[in-house]
Amino acid sequence: MTAETTMKTKVYAALSADKPLQLFEIERRAPRETEVMIEILYCGVCHSDLHQARNEWHNTKYPCVPGHEIVGKVVQAGAQVKKFKIGDVAAIGCMVDSCGQCDACKENLEQHCKKTATFTYNSKDRKTGENTLGGYSQRIVAEESFVLRVPENLDLAAAAPLLCAGITTYSPLKRFKVGKGQKVGVIGLGGLGHMAVKFAKAFGAHVVVFSRSHSKEPDAKRLGADEVIISTDKAEMQKHAGSFDFILDTVAADHDINAYMEILKREASLCLVGAPENPLAVEAFSLIFQRRNLAGSLIGGIQETQEMLDFCGKNKITSDIELIKIDEINQAYERLLKSDVKYRFVIDMQHLK
Amino acid sequence: MTAETTMKTKVYAALSADKPLQLFEIERRAPRETEVMIEILYCGVCHSDLHQARNEWHNTKYPCVPGHEIVGKVVQAGAQVKKFKIGDVAAIGCMVDSCGQCDACKENLEQHCKKTATFTYNSKDRKTGENTLGGYSQRIVAEESFVLRVPENLDLAAAAPLLCAGITTYSPLKRFKVGKGQKVGVIGLGGLGHMAVKFAKAFGAHVVVFSRSHSKEPDAKRLGADEVIISTDKAEMQKHAGSFDFILDTVAADHDINAYMEILKREASLCLVGAPENPLAVEAFSLIFQRRNLAGSLIGGIQETQEMLDFCGKNKITSDIELIKIDEINQAYERLLKSDVKYRFVIDMQHLK
Repeated sequence: MTAETTMKTKVYAALSADKPLQLFEIERRAPRETEVMIEILYCGVCHSDLHQARNEWHNTKYPCVPGHEIVGKVVQAGAQVKKFKIGDVAAIGCMVDSCGQCDACKENLEQHCKKTATFTYNSKDRKTGENTLGGYSQRIVAEESFVLRVPENLDLAAAAPLLCAGITTYSPLKRFKVGKGQKVGVIGLGGLGHMAVKFAKAFGAHVVVFSRSHSKEPDAKRLGADEVIISTDKAEMQKHAGSFDFILDTVAADHDINAYMEILKREASLCLVGAPENPLAVEAFSLIFQRRNLAGSLIGGIQETQEMLDFCGKNKITSDIELIKIDEINQAYERLLKSDVKYRFVIDMQHLK
Repeated sequence: MTAETTMKTKVYAALSADKPLQLFEIERRAPRETEVMIEILYCGVCHSDLHQARNEWHNTKYPCVPGHEIVGKVVQAGAQVKKFKIGDVAAIGCMVDSCGQCDACKENLEQHCKKTATFTYNSKDRKTGENTLGGYSQRIVAEESFVLRVPENLDLAAAAPLLCAGITTYSPLKRFKVGKGQKVGVIGLGGLGHMAVKFAKAFGAHVVVFSRSHSKEPDAKRLGADEVIISTDKAEMQKHAGSFDFILDTVAADHDINAYMEILKREASLCLVGAPENPLAVEAFSLIFQRRNLAGSLIGGIQETQEMLDFCGKNKITSDIELIKIDEINQAYERLLKSDVKYRFVIDMQHLK
């Protein structure tokens, strides 16, 4: 193995679980033959970033550089790169590589790679064995096959969250064939939930947002919801018994899943994309009596992510964001814990230069 | 409304939640125009009978006459009856009527009738408003459309459990398209489980029984299982990670559902037909990581029940039973609580005369 050219790169990193993120320096390698180097313009802030930085999943390697909602410009490209040229807008989501050989990879479901996909941060680089470092960074290098094209008409900062929050909600809505004539529920109106509302509406469904209070109603309707149901109002929930074709559950906090199962139609599904820390208490009868399904979904494959971005270009869909400077990331994490953001923080990376 | 002819009928009934079942007398009406009267020859003993007799579901009306795995002979038929003539072998399962008008009924899924099916016992008769009384009885009267034909080549006593244990397992195996080239798991080897093994094998699947001990292995294999996995052996379970196309869960006792979810393939389903008293503790990640499904199923519609009986006739499938006299029913309930039966008690009704 020959020595590689590397480039000193500024990042924001967590150096341990109990310290705030701080300015730090890493090395990025020059792109290999089929890789591109992206100068990062914007990076969305996902709740996973916080979990990982603080070792809440008990598997964090330090230094940890979070960030997997990355939009930027191609600044270098390997000799074999075909899809991109210098100056192209490009994006990276949650994965940068996978085995490419297993059934899941061959079916374009790299997120389910049997040998585990290489995630954008806190994952083992398939080529070097090093820990991957994410998008809170000046630049990043990845296989071109895992790099996405971004439609030119989209605001680049507001497009960044599509790479995780977007595909995470788009993929199950597509898999469960959400469309016209359907009544579709979205539990939780945060980074994921607000994207789910936009997509379900764009697919033609009658969209219902479940909220614990009336305060979110105006915003839910502005985002495209046809109705808001106060989930704590049992009488109101009961009125909708057996009426939903599909419900997407974006809530990562503990909540009563059975109340939602009961309002699904026969054979309909509730799909989890948020993962509460404690197991869900599922009443067997809420599945048996109308033979309903409880399902789960994990981001989406690279091909579907590109399809989602192209759909967003055609339908002018982006995320509702609050743009921050990178030195505001620690305050942003605290606000994230209080759901105090409409609806996704995005870091403007120019301040890292 | 004119007075109806009625016929004094011996039954075994629970007169209260805390008393054993005892000999009792009820009246059965003569069949109306589209109804038949069946002289009951055999009635299977389902765990639901015990739950209902003892008011464990908190909705029992007394006197309670359980029994919904009924096989007998037609002794009277209303003037409009077309499907049966006097002397025909006939069977009744868990339902005797439904609204006939809702989507579920029109789709031949009467068990999911939006106005609630009329169940064979402890349900409100749609015509008289009276409490329905089940198969621990000399005779029963029902709409011919809810009465099934029994293939002539089957042993009638051993066919009785097909009416509940049979259809409850047949229906989800069919709905989830279990067949050749598939690896299918059955959790629990009782009344339901042993039928699931027979059906899954008949459909051509590689059948795996999960058991807590090696003691059930010879019997599981005799019934058609290709493999037995000791479910408490984590290393053995781990060997099968991600390999199952479908798992049918027939266990009504509390158990760790996540251990089974983890051994399903991507997008595969585990279907509950048993209902534990406590909610199931479901780890969100066991659904999300390979986008698996947790499903439920409730008996089956009348058309599918007939299809199942015909399939059993063609494939010579019946239940493994222990024939008892009706005055042994209370001891049978005690043995049922200890799973001390291979695999279904069936009451020989001749002793009730």
